[in-house]
Amino acid sequence: MKSLKKLFISELQELIDAERQLVKALPDMVNAADDKSLQDAFKTHLEETKKQVTRLDQIFSLLEMDSTGTSCEAMQELIQDCSETIKGYSKSAVRDAALITKAQCIEHYEISIYGTLRTFAKELNMDIAQDLLQENLDEEGKANKTLTKIAEGSLMSAGINQKANPKENE
Amino acid sequence: MKSLKKLFISELQELIDAERQLVKALPDMVNAADDKSLQDAFKTHLEETKKQVTRLDQIFSLLEMDSTGTSCEAMQELIQDCSETIKGYSKSAVRDAALITKAQCIEHYEISIYGTLRTFAKELNMDIAQDLLQENLDEEGKANKTLTKIAEGSLMSAGINQKANPKENE
Repeated sequence: MKSLKKLFISELQELIDAERQLVKALPDMVNAADDKSLQDAFKTHLEETKKQVTRLDQIFSLLEMDSTGTSCEAMQELIQDCSETIKGYSKSAVRDAALITKAQCIEHYEISIYGTLRTFAKELNMDIAQDLLQENLDEEGKANKTLTKIAEGSLMSAGINQKANPKENE
Repeated sequence: MKSLKKLFISELQELIDAERQLVKALPDMVNAADDKSLQDAFKTHLEETKKQVTRLDQIFSLLEMDSTGTSCEAMQELIQDCSETIKGYSKSAVRDAALITKAQCIEHYEISIYGTLRTFAKELNMDIAQDLLQENLDEEGKANKTLTKIAEGSLMSAGINQKANPKENE
């Protein structure tokens, strides 16, 4: 087996474990969120993440390998950070702001890995895998942008950050 | 103290610890890299990271707080991933590709936190802190792009990924 392919598979095995961990963690994040749009964003991302696992499963099928995965310690730590945030705050805008902070770290981690693996797949001439990874990458990018919008709000409505920093307390 | 400000400070305390961890870890990454341009990229980023710690120190001064920091477990795990990568491969293009994979996870983690804290600083009307965080964010973004270029190469020269996937082995 070629070395880059070995690295690709090893990263893919961690990534599918990371996504499976996230499928288990997201329901707690939905419940912990106070803001309705944040709850919805986490719910949507839970459904997306399940589909992403399926796409990664497809890549393992293409490789004629089982998709057991190997423990992704980084994701374990990032999810642990989320859990501690949930425990550390009562339901409020500031907990939502903290949750978004931690969730965006998770998104960025995944964006990094998907970007790398998509590029490895291209180098390895694995066109279908490349497309599947690009789909997941695009979804992660979109999920991250949604969280930024919820945090920052718009001209029409206050974001979580504003709500977590009420002017009457100034 | 306002809640968003408390969250801002708590994240900042983890971030300065994360950057200090990275200052300690980067020399090993320089030594582990085989490719000259990758070594140089890590060296440059080591110098940048030291400056970033100084900028974070400045923010703590503005807050009239000491900058001791609190342990950033996520960065500890991401650096641990790097160390395992270094141990798991001998010096080669494939180790360089693996190192870039792990280093980009670190960059993306930092990009996420700097983006969030810059936005918090804006909401909190902390203009100088906002500028300092933006400077660090821009450097992280640039460092990440440099790693992508080294991995992917250009029309003129092969990247690390290509070198890690030699055609004679096909």
